[in-house]
Amino acid sequence: MNSLGRLFRLSIWGESHGAGIGIVIDGCPAGLSLSEEDFIEDLDRRRPQAVGGTPRRESDKIEFLGGIFEGRTTGSPLSFFSKNTNIRSRDYAGVRDIPRPGHADFVAHKKFGGYEDYRGGGHFSGRLSLAWVIAGVVAKKLLSFLEIRARILEIGGFSSVDEGLAYALEKNDSIGGIIGCEVKGLPIGLGEPFFDSVESLISHAIFSIPAIKGIDFGSGFGSARMLGSEHNDALEDAGGTTRTNHSGGIVGGLSNGNPLYFKVAVKPTSSTPQAQRSYNLKKGQVEEFKIGGRHDLCIALRVPVIVEAATAVVLSDLYLLEKGFRVSS
Amino acid sequence: MNSLGRLFRLSIWGESHGAGIGIVIDGCPAGLSLSEEDFIEDLDRRRPQAVGGTPRRESDKIEFLGGIFEGRTTGSPLSFFSKNTNIRSRDYAGVRDIPRPGHADFVAHKKFGGYEDYRGGGHFSGRLSLAWVIAGVVAKKLLSFLEIRARILEIGGFSSVDEGLAYALEKNDSIGGIIGCEVKGLPIGLGEPFFDSVESLISHAIFSIPAIKGIDFGSGFGSARMLGSEHNDALEDAGGTTRTNHSGGIVGGLSNGNPLYFKVAVKPTSSTPQAQRSYNLKKGQVEEFKIGGRHDLCIALRVPVIVEAATAVVLSDLYLLEKGFRVSS
Amino acid sequence: MNSLGRLFRLSIWGESHGAGIGIVIDGCPAGLSLSEEDFIEDLDRRRPQAVGGTPRRESDKIEFLGGIFEGRTTGSPLSFFSKNTNIRSRDYAGVRDIPRPGHADFVAHKKFGGYEDYRGGGHFSGRLSLAWVIAGVVAKKLLSFLEIRARILEIGGFSSVDEGLAYALEKNDSIGGIIGCEVKGLPIGLGEPFFDSVESLISHAIFSIPAIKGIDFGSGFGSARMLGSEHNDALEDAGGTTRTNHSGGIVGGLSNGNPLYFKVAVKPTSSTPQAQRSYNLKKGQVEEFKIGGRHDLCIALRVPVIVEAATAVVLSDLYLLEKGFRVSS
Amino acid sequence: MNSLGRLFRLSIWGESHGAGIGIVIDGCPAGLSLSEEDFIEDLDRRRPQAVGGTPRRESDKIEFLGGIFEGRTTGSPLSFFSKNTNIRSRDYAGVRDIPRPGHADFVAHKKFGGYEDYRGGGHFSGRLSLAWVIAGVVAKKLLSFLEIRARILEIGGFSSVDEGLAYALEKNDSIGGIIGCEVKGLPIGLGEPFFDSVESLISHAIFSIPAIKGIDFGSGFGSARMLGSEHNDALEDAGGTTRTNHSGGIVGGLSNGNPLYFKVAVKPTSSTPQAQRSYNLKKGQVEEFKIGGRHDLCIALRVPVIVEAATAVVLSDLYLLEKGFRVSS
Repeated sequence: MNSLGRLFRLSIWGESHGAGIGIVIDGCPAGLSLSEEDFIEDLDRRRPQAVGGTPRRESDKIEFLGGIFEGRTTGSPLSFFSKNTNIRSRDYAGVRDIPRPGHADFVAHKKFGGYEDYRGGGHFSGRLSLAWVIAGVVAKKLLSFLEIRARILEIGGFSSVDEGLAYALEKNDSIGGIIGCEVKGLPIGLGEPFFDSVESLISHAIFSIPAIKGIDFGSGFGSARMLGSEHNDALEDAGGTTRTNHSGGIVGGLSNGNPLYFKVAVKPTSSTPQAQRSYNLKKGQVEEFKIGGRHDLCIALRVPVIVEAATAVVLSDLYLLEKGFRVSS
Repeated sequence: MNSLGRLFRLSIWGESHGAGIGIVIDGCPAGLSLSEEDFIEDLDRRRPQAVGGTPRRESDKIEFLGGIFEGRTTGSPLSFFSKNTNIRSRDYAGVRDIPRPGHADFVAHKKFGGYEDYRGGGHFSGRLSLAWVIAGVVAKKLLSFLEIRARILEIGGFSSVDEGLAYALEKNDSIGGIIGCEVKGLPIGLGEPFFDSVESLISHAIFSIPAIKGIDFGSGFGSARMLGSEHNDALEDAGGTTRTNHSGGIVGGLSNGNPLYFKVAVKPTSSTPQAQRSYNLKKGQVEEFKIGGRHDLCIALRVPVIVEAATAVVLSDLYLLEKGFRVSS
Repeated sequence: MNSLGRLFRLSIWGESHGAGIGIVIDGCPAGLSLSEEDFIEDLDRRRPQAVGGTPRRESDKIEFLGGIFEGRTTGSPLSFFSKNTNIRSRDYAGVRDIPRPGHADFVAHKKFGGYEDYRGGGHFSGRLSLAWVIAGVVAKKLLSFLEIRARILEIGGFSSVDEGLAYALEKNDSIGGIIGCEVKGLPIGLGEPFFDSVESLISHAIFSIPAIKGIDFGSGFGSARMLGSEHNDALEDAGGTTRTNHSGGIVGGLSNGNPLYFKVAVKPTSSTPQAQRSYNLKKGQVEEFKIGGRHDLCIALRVPVIVEAATAVVLSDLYLLEKGFRVSS
Repeated sequence: MNSLGRLFRLSIWGESHGAGIGIVIDGCPAGLSLSEEDFIEDLDRRRPQAVGGTPRRESDKIEFLGGIFEGRTTGSPLSFFSKNTNIRSRDYAGVRDIPRPGHADFVAHKKFGGYEDYRGGGHFSGRLSLAWVIAGVVAKKLLSFLEIRARILEIGGFSSVDEGLAYALEKNDSIGGIIGCEVKGLPIGLGEPFFDSVESLISHAIFSIPAIKGIDFGSGFGSARMLGSEHNDALEDAGGTTRTNHSGGIVGGLSNGNPLYFKVAVKPTSSTPQAQRSYNLKKGQVEEFKIGGRHDLCIALRVPVIVEAATAVVLSDLYLLEKGFRVSS
C-alpha cells in the first residue's frame, strides 16, 4: 500500500525522525544515465522558502544504494536513501496527548494501535515527499522529450506569491494555494477507457501528496457551467490538434495529443502559528494550544515540483505500458 | 486495465453495440443475499430522465451468471451480464469519418489501430456505466451499515434541476453539473498514508466514470483560499468528532470518523444537439455537422447513482483490507 | 484471486452446475483474428477419452460476448461464455454429508461457511479448465511464432497410454500421469531474476490446474543427483545455444534462448470407482461409500492441452512486458 | 517484478558488489516485536558451511532503517539494509568475455543491453537470498503459532550430509540436493481454487530462490504412479484430519488442516571447481576455463532456511488475506 505503478513502480518507506527515508524504483529501463547533479534542481525547488519557510534544514543528500553502475541504471531496482540529520524529537512529546488538527496524529494512533512512530508525524511526515522528488527526477529523465511544468496559480487567494506571503505574515496564519500543471509532447492514446484513465491515474498519484484536497482537468469544475457546444474541443486536423483544450488533453480517459492540463488545490499548512483548540486525550477535555517550532506558512510553494514528479511517474508507467521503450546510450 | 480493486475486485467488459456488457466481481465475501429486487432502485436512478433524456430504452435486465447459489453469494466470482437489446448501429456509420468532439472516437482509433468497435463508442460507451451500478448494488449491500448518498448540487449552473433543464431546452444545448457525495458511518483509519490514501482511491474510481472532470474533498478548492486556523478541524472528543469538517472526513489519507464528503464536476453531455465542427478524416477538411439521434441533455442527472457505486466499491475494498469482515446469514 | 497476469490478464468465473463458466481476457492486443474454428482443435483435446473417460458430454460451445469486432480483437476485454447444458444435480446430493476424498468438498465448506455451490464441485470443478483452453487458444495465436507442445510421458507408470489405460481398467481404479512440455522459439531474456522468474510464473500458472502435484524444469529433480560439471550447460556460440539443456532453457530466472522444458505430475483422478472411506458429517462416523456416476479414469490424458494453455498465457504476459508487441493485420 | 505478495509485500534490491542489499516489507501489522537477536539463528543457518563452503565471509549485519519504533513494528513499511563489506571485484573481470555456465551472466547481458552490473552476478547474486532470510524472520515471528521446518533430505544422492560432502570433495565437483519442508498448525481454507492455490503461491515464491529446479507437494511426482484409491486421503473426523497425507495438506488449492508438505530440488552449485567449457565472446570461440575463487560445493546446504522463509512469507500473506489478524502487545 506504500507502492504505486504497474511497470514503473515506486515503494517508499521512512519516518520523519527515524534513520531516514528511502525509495525503491523498480522497472526503470536499463541504460539511463543518473548522477547526483541530476537531482540538484528539483531538490532545491522542494526546499523551504526564504520567507515564511520552516527553519528545519535537511541536507537532503541522496545516497544511491542500488541499481546504478558506472553512472547508468542497470535494469535492477533503483534504491535511494536520505539520512535524517536534523532531528529534534523533543518538539513532538505533546503530540500523543493533544492531537494536532489537520495532522494524522489521531487517526494514525487509532489505525496502528498506538505503535506508530509519532515523532514529527512519523511515516506521515512531509519529509516523505522527498521520495517523490527522487522518483520525479528519474521519471523526467526517462521522459526527457516531454515538457512537464507545474507552477503556482495563486496562494492565499492572491495570484502573486509576494502578495500572498505578505497576507500570511500579516495574519500570522498559514495559507493554501492552487497549482497548475501542464505537459506538452504527449502522444495520442496513453491511458485506458475506465479504471486506468489518465485522470484516474494522475489523480491517484496527486492525492498521494500530503495537503492536496482537489484536482480538476482542463476546464474542470468550470466545465459544469458550460454548454456542450462551448466545451467540446473541435478536431482541426488529422494529427488530433483541437481548436480549444477544455478537456485538458484527455478524452475517453486517453491522452489526445494536446497538452495535458490540470489544477490542484493545496490546503493551508496544518501547522499554523495561531492558537488552536483540540481534545487533550490525557486530561479528557478540549483545550487551547499552540504548535511548537516554526513551520512553512504556505506549503503550496514547495508542491509544484512534487506535482511534476507525480505526473512524470504516472506518465512513465503509461509510456512503458504503451511503448515498451528502452533507453539507449 | 479494465479491473479495479485489491480485494473487492471488478473486471468490466462489453460494448455499446456488441452482445452486451458484463462485470465480474471477485473477492465478495460468501453469504451476502442478492436478488433481482436489490437492483431495481439503482437501475432506475441510472435510467434517462423523462425530460431531456435519451430515448434509447434498454431493458437493463441483469442476468446472474455465476457466484450466486440459493440467493446468496458463494465466495466465488460474481458474474453479471446485461444483453444489448436496443441497438441501431446505422446511427454510427459516420463516426469513422468525422470523429465526434468530446467523444473517444478519434483517440480510440489511434490507440487500437483501427480495430476498435466504433459503434456507439464501443467499449467507451456510457452503457458500460451499468456495470458500475451493478457493482455498487453489491458493495452497498455489503456495507449496509453505511449511509452513502450522492445528489445533484447544480446543473448548468442552476441549483434547481428544473431551472437547469429549462435553460438547456431553451438553449437547445447540453449542460453539465456538480454532484456532492456524503458517506456517514465510516470507522477511523481506512486508507493509507500515501499512494492508497482515501482521496487517491476514491478519485481513481470516480475518474473511471465517463464525463467527470474534477473532484475535491471537504472544502476542496475553497480550502486554497482559507487560513490554516479556519480550515483546521478541531478535535472535540476522544471518539474523533471534529467541530467542523473542512477536511471532508480524511486526514493524512485516512478516514477520521467524520462524514466523508466530496464533490465532482460533470462536463456537459458531449452529444449536444447544436451544430459542431470537426475534422473529416476522409475528406481531409474541417466541416460542420450534427450528431444524429437524441441524447441526454444533462448526463449529470444520471451520475449520482454511479458516484455512489464507485464510492461503495472503494470502501468495500478498504473494509476488507482493514476489517477482513465476513457476511453472516 | 481468480485472476492472473500483469498485462495479459485472465479472470475466470463459473460453476459446474450453475449457468455456465466464463473468462475475461484483458490486455490482448488489438487486431488478432479470432474465429470459432480457432478453438476446435484444443477443445477436442480437452474432451473425455473414448476409453475410460467420463460420459458427461458438454457441447463446450463458446460464445464470444465482448472484445471482438469483425473477426478481430478490438483491444477491449475479451469475454467468453460457455453455457452448462448437461447437468444432473441430483448426483451430488450426498456430497454435503460425506465429503469426497481428494475433492474440495470439505475445505470449500469450511472456507465459505457453507454458502459454497457444492453441486459437482461448484467453482472448484474441472469444468473450469475450459477457461484455460479458451485463454490458451488466444495466447497461442498471439504467439504463433512459437512452438508450444505438451504430451503424455507416462500414465499409471506406463509410457504407453494403452498399457496405462488397460492397467486402470484391470484395477478398476483411477491413475495419474506425467506430462512434458516444450517451447521452441523463445527469445533470450524473458522473465525476471527473482519473484518473476520464468519458473515462478510458469509454476504459478501450472498449479492453477486441478490435480497437478509437481513440476520440475530441465533435469529437475534429477539435477539434485548430478555433479555441477555434468549439469552446467556449456555456451556454444554468441547466440546463446548450449550444448546440453539441463536447465530447461532458464538460467537466473530468465529464458536463455534454448527450448523451455518442464514436466508436471498429475495425481490419479480423485473420483475412483473403488469403494472409499470418508467421514459422514451428518452421522458423525467414518463409513465406506462409492462415488456415483462414471468419471475419467485418467484425468492426465486431458491435461496436456491445459498445460500448453497455461504456458502460452504466461509467455504472452512476458512477451507483452518485454516486447510490447502489437498485432498487425 | 522484484516484488511479491498481495498484503504482506516484499520489494528487494541490491547487488553483489554494490553498496549492499536491502528489502522493504510493506503490510506487516503494527506491534510485532523485532530485535537484532531475532535474526541471529536464521542468518547463521544461511552462512557457508565449515566444510566445502565459500570462504567469502560477509558480516551479514542488518540495519533497521524504517518501520520499527521502540522495538516494535509501526505498521509503516519495514526497511532493512545489509552493507557489502567483503568485495573483491577483480575476481569477476573475465565474466564479460566468458559467461559462466549455469550463471545469469549471458542472459543478463542480453536482457539489460550490457548495462547490468556484472560483478559477482550483480543483482542475480545469491547474496540477495539474505533478503529472503530477513523477510522469513519477520514472517515467522508473525506466524509464531506455526511450526515451519525445512531440512535436507539428500545431497548428491546421499541421505547423509557427511557422505554427500565426502563425495563432492572426492570428485572435486559441486553437488545438488533435495529439501523437504513441513508446516504444522495451518487452519483449513487458506488459498484459492485456481490462480492463487497454495501450491501456486508457494511454488512461485520457491522458484524465486536461485538454483531451485523442481517442487512437488505431498506424494508429488510419486502420485503419478499411484492408484486413486491409494492416493486419496480419507477424512477421519469433523476437524479435517485425514488418515494419510498424500496431498501434502492441500486439496482444491486450499489448505486442509493437515501438515503442508513439499520437496524442492536444488541443482549443483554452478561454480564447480572443475574445468568447464564456454564461449569466449571476445575471441569468438569455445574454450576451456576454470571459475576463479572458491565456492560452496553444495549450495543446497544453505537453502533450507530460505525455503522456510519463502514459505513463511507466502503464509503470512494468506493469513492476512483470510484472517486479517493484528498483532497485540
